[in-house]
Order: sequence, then C-alpha cells, then structure tokens
Amino acid sequence: MACADLRIVLHQTSHPGNIGAAARAMKTMGLADLWLVAPQHYPDPEATARASGATDVLDSARCSASLDEALAGCVLVIGTTARERHRSAPVLDPRTAVAQARTAAGPVALLFGPERIGLTNAALDRCHYLVRIPTNPAYGSLNLAAAVQVLAYEWRMAEQPALPSGGRPPKIPPATADEMARFYGQLEQVLRQLDFFIDADNPTPLMRRLKRLFNRAALDREEYNILCGILGAIAVRKE
Amino acid sequence: MACADLRIVLHQTSHPGNIGAAARAMKTMGLADLWLVAPQHYPDPEATARASGATDVLDSARCSASLDEALAGCVLVIGTTARERHRSAPVLDPRTAVAQARTAAGPVALLFGPERIGLTNAALDRCHYLVRIPTNPAYGSLNLAAAVQVLAYEWRMAEQPALPSGGRPPKIPPATADEMARFYGQLEQVLRQLDFFIDADNPTPLMRRLKRLFNRAALDREEYNILCGILGAIAVRKE
Repeated sequence: MACADLRIVLHQTSHPGNIGAAARAMKTMGLADLWLVAPQHYPDPEATARASGATDVLDSARCSASLDEALAGCVLVIGTTARERHRSAPVLDPRTAVAQARTAAGPVALLFGPERIGLTNAALDRCHYLVRIPTNPAYGSLNLAAAVQVLAYEWRMAEQPALPSGGRPPKIPPATADEMARFYGQLEQVLRQLDFFIDADNPTPLMRRLKRLFNRAALDREEYNILCGILGAIAVRKE
Repeated sequence: MACADLRIVLHQTSHPGNIGAAARAMKTMGLADLWLVAPQHYPDPEATARASGATDVLDSARCSASLDEALAGCVLVIGTTARERHRSAPVLDPRTAVAQARTAAGPVALLFGPERIGLTNAALDRCHYLVRIPTNPAYGSLNLAAAVQVLAYEWRMAEQPALPSGGRPPKIPPATADEMARFYGQLEQVLRQLDFFIDADNPTPLMRRLKRLFNRAALDREEYNILCGILGAIAVRKE
C-alpha cells in the first residue's frame, strides 16, 4: 500500500536506555527510520541493551546536531506534547494524528522532546500538528519509549484494514520542512527590513503566529515558490 | 461513565523491571488494579525504580501463587497472545477486545504471560477471548510493559470523548468574506506595485492560486489584521 513514511525524531533525549527501548518499540511496529538529534549520551551500552533484537534500527539511526537536518525532506511534522492545548498548533489525539499523517504526500516526522521538559518552543514552531496521548490527569508521566510504542502502534493499526481513501492525493508535491524553514527565515528578514516588528528584539511572538497560519495552510511546492518570489521582490525593491 | 473495571494480571513475570514499568504504564492510563501471579523476583528494587512515580500501584498490587485467586470475581478474562490464531479462544485486535471488555457487566481481567513463552495452556483455557497486538511479522518481540501500555492506552482511548477534528478552539472570530475580499484587493495592488505579475493585464491566475492558499488557511480576524498590516508596510515604503 502506498502511504507516507514515518520518521521518528528523538530530540535531546537524556537517557540512552530510552533510545534503545524506542528502537525496539519501532521495530515491533515495522518502523525503521530513526533520527537522534543531540542525544545526551549516545552511543551507550544501555541503549544497545534495551534495544533487545532491534539493534539494527539503532545501527541505522542517523544522528545530527540540529533539528533542521532531521526534518529535512519531511512534508509534515507532528510534535508530541503532554498538554491539551497549545498556541502553536492544533493538538490531535493519536488516532486523528495518524490518520492525518497517513494522507501526507511525503515523509512525516514524529518529533519527541527531552524526557522531562518536552519540546522547546523552537521545536514546537516547526510542527504542523501536535499529538497528545490521553493520560491520567493525576499522572501523565508516560515513558518516552512507551509514547513511541503507542504512536507506532496506532500507525500500524492504521495499516491493518484498507484505508478509506479520504484525501485526494495532491498533484503538486508539498513544501518540505526545510523549505518552510527557509521561507520563515526570509519572511522574518523582510519584516525586519519593513520595520514591521513592534519589538525588533523579539520577533518570535509575531513569527509564531505567522508560522501557525502557514503551517495550517500546508503549502505545496508551487505556492512556496510564489511566496518566496514575493518576498524576493519586496527585498529587491528595498535595496 | 459507568463501565467495567479493568484488572491487569501479570502471570509468572520473569523481570521485576517489567513489573515496575507495567505499573507506570497502567497509572498513566488511569488503571490501578494490578495482580501479580507467582512473579519470579518480587518485590525488587528494579521494579520500584522502573515504576517511577507509580509506586502506589505497586504498593497496592496483590500477589498470589495461583491464577485462580487473581481471576476471582472477574466476569470476562482476556489473554494476550503473539499468535494470530488459537484453538482455545477467538483472537481479537486490541480495539475490538477493549470494546468487548467495556460491555462486560463486571470486572475484566487482562492476562499477560511470562515474557519469553507467553501464557501456558492452562492459563489460555481460562480466557474467553485472546488479544493480539499487531506486530511486524519479522520482529514481534514486544516488551511486556509496552504491551500493557498499548492495551491500557486502548482502554483509555475508549473512555475519551472524541476530539473535534482539527482540535483548534476558535476563540478568535474568523475573518469575514468581505474582509478577505479587501485583503485580496490590497494584495493584488501591492503585487502590481512590485511588478510581480508576469502578465500585468491578467493577474487572475496568480491571484486565484493565492486566494486558494489563504482560503485554505481560514484566517482568523487577528491573522487578517497582521497580513493587512504587512501589505500596508510594503505599500508605504514604496511611496
């Protein structure tokens, strides 16, 4: 069945055991694309031990210092959160998030923050959607690998029966996460030239609103090119 | 919502760490009724460590030498299996099994066998149904606590009211059709000033694409104001 690929991105994981257990969880559900962004301790014997028979997933995992590298080429980024609401993006339950992800026209990144604190604001700003696993309000301390297991399980469950063909496959490929990051960079630069930021030292709140807007629109490649062209035309006129 | 209670029964578990991790998995999903039948090592510091903040579930867990005691009072017994078919009982997927369990008129036991070998034939014979978590045919080695997590998650999901798709609480009113018409008029004017239209006599095709993009994003009032502000800033600079 043709369907989006799912990439698991673990951002700044503290405990190597969780990396190994996440690799095992992935492999049980048939997933193999693992990215480790700035893990605190890796490689580590504890990771290998907890991976059990899934050391091949660990061995083929890619490591990077920045999130940009790990998200490159992904057309949809879904971040995990423990909160029910977020300013940065809509919060979906796992089943809805997976259904959304499976309609994507290219690789999808599922992003997990560090164990204690979760995703940083900068990482949240990269997400088109957030996913929250429903938990006990009195104890939401889901282990990182357990969260990977639950979401990977939902992914696999969605593979089991024939998918209802909901969304029409877009003819034009979507803009990738790295293209969108470039677009936001260029947009911020142009707004700065226009003296548009009320507080030039803190463009983040306004940029976050704009990112949320354009993430929601889920630009395709041509739309991305048009918008970059407009930004380029504004910049040229200002020189 | 009135509904059956779920008891987690771990039969002859080998590794105390798995008992602790299972307790944590249960508590995150709001479950507290844990029975340990003839665990190989328990109590054990490894169990306590892996339980993290769920030591209360461990502390209130009941231990017994026989399965009979642990299943006493349960009106439905569902055993976990890694096999797709069984002679002893129908094999359900987790979602179906949970739906079945929730219709029970009394406590339901969810039974997990020892890590390596799974439920004994004697234990299988106690089960009304079996549940199989779908796994990678090449690697079905689901950790015991991970299996508890997945099934407890399904139980909790069945308790949740479905999120409205999109999950975005519309606190800010949407931009109206006439506001959007003004925005598109302003956008066309600015693009004209920037000499952005390849064919200045026919801006319609490009404008149509941009309208489609922004309509898809379904701007709210504040986003509309921000975008109009940006267009205003570009126009002022050009004068």
